[in-house]
Amino acid sequence: MAGRDRVVSLLRQLERMASSNIRYGEGVSREIGMDLQNLRAQNVCLMTDRNLSRLSPVKVVLESLTKNGVKYKLFDNVRVEPTDTSFKEAILFAKNDSFDVFVAVGGGSVIDTCKAANLYSCHPEADFLDFVNAPIGKGKPITGALKPLIAVPTTAGTGSETTGVAIFDYTPLKAKTGIASRAIRPTLGIVDPMHTLSMPERVTANSGFDVLCHALESYTALPYNQRSPCPPNPINRPAYQGSNPISDVWSRHALHVVAKYMKRAVRDPEDLEARSSMHLASVFAGIGFGNAGVHLCHGMSYPIAGNVKTHSAKGYSVEHPLVPHGLSVVLTSPAVFNFTAPMCPERHLEAAHILGADVRQLKRDDAGAVLADTLRQFLFDLQVEDGLGALGYSLDDIPALVKGTIPQERVTKLSPRGHTEEDLSQLFQASMKLY
Amino acid sequence: MAGRDRVVSLLRQLERMASSNIRYGEGVSREIGMDLQNLRAQNVCLMTDRNLSRLSPVKVVLESLTKNGVKYKLFDNVRVEPTDTSFKEAILFAKNDSFDVFVAVGGGSVIDTCKAANLYSCHPEADFLDFVNAPIGKGKPITGALKPLIAVPTTAGTGSETTGVAIFDYTPLKAKTGIASRAIRPTLGIVDPMHTLSMPERVTANSGFDVLCHALESYTALPYNQRSPCPPNPINRPAYQGSNPISDVWSRHALHVVAKYMKRAVRDPEDLEARSSMHLASVFAGIGFGNAGVHLCHGMSYPIAGNVKTHSAKGYSVEHPLVPHGLSVVLTSPAVFNFTAPMCPERHLEAAHILGADVRQLKRDDAGAVLADTLRQFLFDLQVEDGLGALGYSLDDIPALVKGTIPQERVTKLSPRGHTEEDLSQLFQASMKLY
Repeated sequence: MAGRDRVVSLLRQLERMASSNIRYGEGVSREIGMDLQNLRAQNVCLMTDRNLSRLSPVKVVLESLTKNGVKYKLFDNVRVEPTDTSFKEAILFAKNDSFDVFVAVGGGSVIDTCKAANLYSCHPEADFLDFVNAPIGKGKPITGALKPLIAVPTTAGTGSETTGVAIFDYTPLKAKTGIASRAIRPTLGIVDPMHTLSMPERVTANSGFDVLCHALESYTALPYNQRSPCPPNPINRPAYQGSNPISDVWSRHALHVVAKYMKRAVRDPEDLEARSSMHLASVFAGIGFGNAGVHLCHGMSYPIAGNVKTHSAKGYSVEHPLVPHGLSVVLTSPAVFNFTAPMCPERHLEAAHILGADVRQLKRDDAGAVLADTLRQFLFDLQVEDGLGALGYSLDDIPALVKGTIPQERVTKLSPRGHTEEDLSQLFQASMKLY
Repeated sequence: MAGRDRVVSLLRQLERMASSNIRYGEGVSREIGMDLQNLRAQNVCLMTDRNLSRLSPVKVVLESLTKNGVKYKLFDNVRVEPTDTSFKEAILFAKNDSFDVFVAVGGGSVIDTCKAANLYSCHPEADFLDFVNAPIGKGKPITGALKPLIAVPTTAGTGSETTGVAIFDYTPLKAKTGIASRAIRPTLGIVDPMHTLSMPERVTANSGFDVLCHALESYTALPYNQRSPCPPNPINRPAYQGSNPISDVWSRHALHVVAKYMKRAVRDPEDLEARSSMHLASVFAGIGFGNAGVHLCHGMSYPIAGNVKTHSAKGYSVEHPLVPHGLSVVLTSPAVFNFTAPMCPERHLEAAHILGADVRQLKRDDAGAVLADTLRQFLFDLQVEDGLGALGYSLDDIPALVKGTIPQERVTKLSPRGHTEEDLSQLFQASMKLY
């Protein structure tokens, strides 16, 4: 009975684990027409972005729809790193018709936009901020039924095909926020590694960094039995519930795959084994973080992306200034994990070990430094910009970056270590230059 | 590009991964009344067995229903190790009312019976054999919508809360068969480790063996890209698709938990940490085998259970002769894995290593023998009956056991090694005595 008190405490609070249906394999996106027939779809809303609409992933899906006689309408105006305005345009498109199934072909921006279009067209009476996370929105629970949504991810990063999260830039506050509810999770994710062959080198790198941070943040997130509040009614519980024994399995496994394959995937666009493996890793990490949550890297990334002035992202076919999501997330990772390590040093040491560091002689107190060094080396090897400074930020911008992080409490509260505005300020400062 | 051909071949065929929603934690079954309210349930069908109906797991659920004003009707006549007759009784109960949600509180027998009751009451026109696996049944695909089903497992073994499988004894052939379709998978599994404290010692052992074999069989199952046939329409694909990179994660993890906690869970009913861990392991293994499948141990277990004459199972409150499912599965495991090892020796060596064997000096050719020895020692330590002989079987029974295995092709075809009736005969013979 010695262990009982500990275990009762371990289990005191609640956990729910949600996973998506995933189909994986080369060429599986060619089958989507049959899936839509099986769903008896009469009028499909197909969403993508302008660039992808000319590329193979969309062509393959359209051919399958045509072959199976599935009627659809195409919306190809998704914005890369979407905003409230771009979300609303997609929502209007969906509201102006009566679709019975939604299909998203693209990266996280497309899938997230399609989730929002499905949600609001099924709740035509709702105000846009009703379902947006508090404190920016009202964070109301979603009670009505949505239409089926099939997601076909074309990047290996977002994991959006597995999650109930849709992120956008709320322009009035220059900060990213989102909608988080299991209700908007895709019905089926079709993970076709052939699609990742069309990713430019920097898209592969940045989306891979998103996978890396999903895995690291969810693995080090506040444990599920320590988070609060704990709403008594299950329907009111957050999608992000802290690290737990199930999400740990996914997060750790994703980290192993990143360690083994990410550099190969970035460096050789023809390395199908590496790119397929990263595509699956994005699913693994998505299921991990979709249940455990992310914390400071993601919370701080939103103002980094939202306050962009002039940075133009290589490899992205967009005309507006852009800090790609994965890049905005990973640049603070050395500082963040150095900061969080004291709360769960074993997990930080284990992460460093998985990423290739020799940790045998190290003590718990070394955990933050070694993981930070390992991450810096990893970023350097992959030729990542040298910190926030390289994106055009200076020390003068830190107050705005901190201010933009405050509303991200939904994720930052999952940090294993509590933090003040001064702590955030120091984390941004430490991330100005990496090498 | 060197690896490309290999990878294309790896990915040539198709895979889909389905997981269930699971809520896990001490006391979570007390919340079920709120879940049912959230589902707007007006008339709930609650299924359990006679023995459990007097025990805490059912009491806790009933209290929650009453507290939340949820109306229900109770069916407590589920048979442990159900038959076509007992399934039909439960189906009739469900058809004679109009239920909008189903709740199963019990082990695999209860959950499986409830799946069948939900299925056939939603398809009142169907003949019982319509959805039963071929060749015994017609194996028709399920196209209609079912009612939500919430499963509250009270044993740590079945994994039925995560799978689309319902197993029963088809009495005309004295062989187990089942229904397998993602459509019958529970909507939500409520995994409350407090329930496992009421499991008698032998129920803990036998259900743990089921977890062990789910993990071992799914990890060694024929790889997903080697199975056939491969129906072009996704809706016609089998639930069991062979081992794959996602199910491998679950199967391997479950095996680690079994190795660490199973003996403790069996020996000390108060060891909540061990029993909780095994409860989660049954979920992990369930997701693994629910997608990859099982093979020979399960295929051969059905006639072992179905042909029982006089064996009375300790710790089970039933009046009929019974070979508990987990016991019927595990007794052939040393012989089976000795037989299958040549097809994937690395996986067999890894399994032996996880279960505690020192495999450093071993060669691939030793894999079968070392895993068989490791399993025999594991069973001996847990005081398992000494083979099929101890259940009352003799060599004279082998033809009947082989005959009863033949219709289990749905699972036996997932064996990594092809086999003749003579092979099956030798596997039964080698399982007559273990120590």
